Amino acid sequence: MTDRAKHDAMANAIRALSMDAVQAANSGHPGLPMGGADIATVLFTKIMKFDPKAPHWPDRDRFVLSAGHGSMLLYSSLYLLGYEDMTLDDIKNFRQLGYKTAGHPEYGHADGIETTTGPLGQGLGNSVGMAIAEAHLNAEFGDDLVNHFTYVYAGDGCLMEGISQESISLAGHLKLNKLIVIWDNNDITIDGKVSMADSTDQIARFKAVGWNTMEIDGHDPDQIEAALKDAQKSDKPTLISAKTTIGFGSPNKAGTSKAHGSPLGNDEIALAKAELGWKYGPFEVPEDLMDAWRLAGNRGTKARSAWTDRLNATDAETKAEFERRMRGDLPEALKTAMADYKRKLAEEKPKLATRASSQKALEVINGAMPETIGGSADLTGSNNTNTSQTLPFTSNDYSGRYIHYGIREHGMVAAMNGIALHGGLYPYGGTFLTFTDYCRPSIRLAALMGIRVGLVMTHDSIGLGEDGPTHQPVEHLAALRAIPGLLVFRPADAMEAAECWEIALERFKQPSVLALSRQNLPTLRTEYSKDNLCLRGAYSIWGDKDAEVVFFGTGSETQLAVEAAKELTDEGISARAVSVPSMELFAAQSDDYKRTVFGKARARVAIEAGVEMGWSKFLGENGRFVGMTGFGASGEINALYKHFGITTKAAVEAAKAQL
Amino acid sequence: MTDRAKHDAMANAIRALSMDAVQAANSGHPGLPMGGADIATVLFTKIMKFDPKAPHWPDRDRFVLSAGHGSMLLYSSLYLLGYEDMTLDDIKNFRQLGYKTAGHPEYGHADGIETTTGPLGQGLGNSVGMAIAEAHLNAEFGDDLVNHFTYVYAGDGCLMEGISQESISLAGHLKLNKLIVIWDNNDITIDGKVSMADSTDQIARFKAVGWNTMEIDGHDPDQIEAALKDAQKSDKPTLISAKTTIGFGSPNKAGTSKAHGSPLGNDEIALAKAELGWKYGPFEVPEDLMDAWRLAGNRGTKARSAWTDRLNATDAETKAEFERRMRGDLPEALKTAMADYKRKLAEEKPKLATRASSQKALEVINGAMPETIGGSADLTGSNNTNTSQTLPFTSNDYSGRYIHYGIREHGMVAAMNGIALHGGLYPYGGTFLTFTDYCRPSIRLAALMGIRVGLVMTHDSIGLGEDGPTHQPVEHLAALRAIPGLLVFRPADAMEAAECWEIALERFKQPSVLALSRQNLPTLRTEYSKDNLCLRGAYSIWGDKDAEVVFFGTGSETQLAVEAAKELTDEGISARAVSVPSMELFAAQSDDYKRTVFGKARARVAIEAGVEMGWSKFLGENGRFVGMTGFGASGEINALYKHFGITTKAAVEAAKAQL
Repeated sequence: MTDRAKHDAMANAIRALSMDAVQAANSGHPGLPMGGADIATVLFTKIMKFDPKAPHWPDRDRFVLSAGHGSMLLYSSLYLLGYEDMTLDDIKNFRQLGYKTAGHPEYGHADGIETTTGPLGQGLGNSVGMAIAEAHLNAEFGDDLVNHFTYVYAGDGCLMEGISQESISLAGHLKLNKLIVIWDNNDITIDGKVSMADSTDQIARFKAVGWNTMEIDGHDPDQIEAALKDAQKSDKPTLISAKTTIGFGSPNKAGTSKAHGSPLGNDEIALAKAELGWKYGPFEVPEDLMDAWRLAGNRGTKARSAWTDRLNATDAETKAEFERRMRGDLPEALKTAMADYKRKLAEEKPKLATRASSQKALEVINGAMPETIGGSADLTGSNNTNTSQTLPFTSNDYSGRYIHYGIREHGMVAAMNGIALHGGLYPYGGTFLTFTDYCRPSIRLAALMGIRVGLVMTHDSIGLGEDGPTHQPVEHLAALRAIPGLLVFRPADAMEAAECWEIALERFKQPSVLALSRQNLPTLRTEYSKDNLCLRGAYSIWGDKDAEVVFFGTGSETQLAVEAAKELTDEGISARAVSVPSMELFAAQSDDYKRTVFGKARARVAIEAGVEMGWSKFLGENGRFVGMTGFGASGEINALYKHFGITTKAAVEAAKAQL
Repeated sequence: MTDRAKHDAMANAIRALSMDAVQAANSGHPGLPMGGADIATVLFTKIMKFDPKAPHWPDRDRFVLSAGHGSMLLYSSLYLLGYEDMTLDDIKNFRQLGYKTAGHPEYGHADGIETTTGPLGQGLGNSVGMAIAEAHLNAEFGDDLVNHFTYVYAGDGCLMEGISQESISLAGHLKLNKLIVIWDNNDITIDGKVSMADSTDQIARFKAVGWNTMEIDGHDPDQIEAALKDAQKSDKPTLISAKTTIGFGSPNKAGTSKAHGSPLGNDEIALAKAELGWKYGPFEVPEDLMDAWRLAGNRGTKARSAWTDRLNATDAETKAEFERRMRGDLPEALKTAMADYKRKLAEEKPKLATRASSQKALEVINGAMPETIGGSADLTGSNNTNTSQTLPFTSNDYSGRYIHYGIREHGMVAAMNGIALHGGLYPYGGTFLTFTDYCRPSIRLAALMGIRVGLVMTHDSIGLGEDGPTHQPVEHLAALRAIPGLLVFRPADAMEAAECWEIALERFKQPSVLALSRQNLPTLRTEYSKDNLCLRGAYSIWGDKDAEVVFFGTGSETQLAVEAAKELTDEGISARAVSVPSMELFAAQSDDYKRTVFGKARARVAIEAGVEMGWSKFLGENGRFVGMTGFGASGEINALYKHFGITTKAAVEAAKAQL
């Protein structure tokens, strides 16, 4: 049995700090931390395995605050538990520029923040990936090294977002039984009562996708503890519906949307503290309570030291491999394997769709990198994301390296983010480039967090042909290039595809999109190069450096740039073709290098089967763009390129018009 | 009882045309039309109310092929039923450029295509909007004029996408009982069996969100007919799980993913036709079967003529209003009301956030336009989308004009598209600008279809402050401007907000985004103008036309442009400020007008609290941009603007650097 008075006081410490911090910031969300304080107290002080002194311990339990607006629940808990880099000063400066305590939890700001949350449902999606990573690494390294739970705190908003269905149906299908979701069932959203907008029987909904479910009073510590311990024994993922009162303790605002997203006000805080029996001033936590929290924070020390002993007792090779994987370092073998592969490409000069070139590169990568875990949103044969090494990851066999994510692009990328955040694995997954729209919120978060995930986006233009404008990306390259920190690659041939994959793997703190063609493309790079030319972002692929005309191309249109340059040269006008596999990498080059790329050209033409937006840095004021000005159409590929005027002829004419 | 032989032959006509068309195109999806032929035959020939001779009859039942890849199911049915603009030539040229029979159904290509589908789940989302529109117009105009069903044909992909959960939970909550979804339960997706990726009990899932459910054999015409008739009587939306065989009739490919997305091949088609007892050559339908289909197509004539009689018997005012609404014309009263409102603004010069200015404009619009139906994804008080006229649309009262969409941005916009497609209503709805990412696939489809929906996107920059980078749009203006056909407005003050709303309403064939500030902004436009200045997209708001320096600004940064121009002018350097409420509208102006906007300026500076992408047309080669280069941060608004260098001072310096 819980010492109820002690529990209440410990939970009230979270409530008091949260009320005070939101009040000091004069903005924020007190309702959730006050409602969830009992759950957080039990979870952090009795259930979860972690060590504030070693916050990156690989075998720690993960906690995801999917309802990120309740950030003070997490910040106050981390502070109370003794995480060193969450200070009282940070709490006092909640939501202020330069402090770790951002309005929503930001990954990388402080230890113990396992992912960035705020956009609803994303944390739940991440948690499925974390549980996948745990299951897979457990299958690979065994219980001694990998054996932990993923706990999620989700609100009504998380469960209403569509991504939640993708995530829970995937988790249920995969029987991720070490995933435990606590639903803060408080009946309130911003607009008012949940019943204004939703009548879902969440228990029935989760059961329908194969979850274990429980219903408890979220303010009863014994029920909370019992439910969490039961959940740990489940052979399915568990949903704990915890009935809570938003803003618990606030006499006039508890249980209403008024407690959700605004400071309570000093008067109401005084009343709430009185109701809770909290006698302390702003940000004050009495020493005995602080001690109780810190003691609870130290619970994990023993488990961690036992784990370290087990790691040290592991054979040297396994230990080294485990440690390399957790650091995210690439294996030595990869460089050699890729060099060999690129030499072979130079010899064979294959005519392949870049989606197929990507698959060939992945065959080499997956052979050299046991930490890759691939997948597709039900387009395996189209995305070419599978290789000889990728047996399926299933509920019967978590050692598989390929996830059939189902028709769940959003859930897929959120899960990939979770896999990357967990550590030890490199996730990649595919869909059509046009459906980056379906998973864009998760792509954005990968970029914001600075994590390494590989987005294999095939069928990257009107070149996909007959499926028509719904399936033809037109604005997507521009829209993706607009996301800060995201690397967008559009390789022109098999050699560039290999180089782009190498860069994607080497950039540990950036997500990468590989935009790949459905249609076959000739090999333009026929010589082996020790240097990765794509690393420059843009480079001359054909023609004289002092040419009068320069044609820029990406992906499938690079061949048009080369053809146009050759045609003009044949006509006696010197011309050059520049391949632009990545605008972001080019933007990072020195001015000197950039000048060599532009050379002395009097005319510039860019060719890309997408919209012009984003090309100005290449074209300057007078350059011309050959590409799309609106949506595509359903038709045969050659008919489409002709219809939309994306041809060598158009490129040549665009150049001549400038001379 | 069904005459089974006749039914089978009629259904086989769909199968044969579909096989033949896919084969002729050498690409496409034969599996769904073959599997769904029995359902389509019963639905179109016995259940649905429509008239091929009057395809836009407002009171027709709607049919949505959510699984758009099965487009031949729809095309062949329309042809067989006698829709005049779906010809055999179109069928023979399936998926060819210039024909109506695109790979996926494209709204506007042919009568009877009620919405563009292909991106999975969107049609289901649209159908919820169509059912909302029907319910609302029924409440307004009565059973005599509005009383019809919305039928949806959805596949496993539609049900796996997250948007489906948002859509079905909204429909269940609103008890949209005239919405009937047929689930093509064929156990197959592209990668293989559904069971590879999903274990959802769909019946239980739909029950959990308040749906009526049934399970039938999708190849038994009697069961199909009985289920549809039962569904019509339900007081809830209905899911009919129809067990079907994908590629029904193909001896070697039926029931497998091989039948899904590739032509069967001539040999297999011959075998399938033999198995189905279909003795006719490619694209051949015998006369008796053609007659049977055409006769079925004529079933609706009587109902339509009765409806026309009822409309003609309606009082003249109601009839005229109903017809105006269906045409989508704006009411006469709107222009006057808006002019009065703008005159008042010029007098009062309010200092308001543009989200509040938008609300004031909506108050006028909603007063003059009974056809508006507003809403928000649980951010009513933040988006300011409600007005005095907008009582809630609830399951108890469909006459309400405000939808609490819940935390379902994607489902919201898909439903708004459906409302617009249905006709008779103008839907607008709000969320935060950053969450346009959550509904981007539906926004894209609105632009592709060319339909009028209003997207009220508030909290449009780092100006929202403390909520931090997850909530601060940075790349979103660029990413939205990249979508062809979409109008993106960023008004600078209350006057511009009013003008932008007027344009959004007048553009019947374009969706509009209004990007609106959280923070208060001064009135910059203090004079009443009869002309709508925002219609030009960009116009001089302060300063001399021959100024040496021009500052461009949008939204909350327009005031910085004006301040910078004033400051420079005070220093003796002539400067001008240009407000850019819409880049798309400016792009459509004459070269002459554009030249007047750029004037003779030697220096150009653009100021926008977003990324630079898209500004090159304004800046040319040497102009400078003052804005964001990465993600935002959590902090107080003034601290953020200073931190990120978006200030009058920075703008002035950027100008001087060019002089």
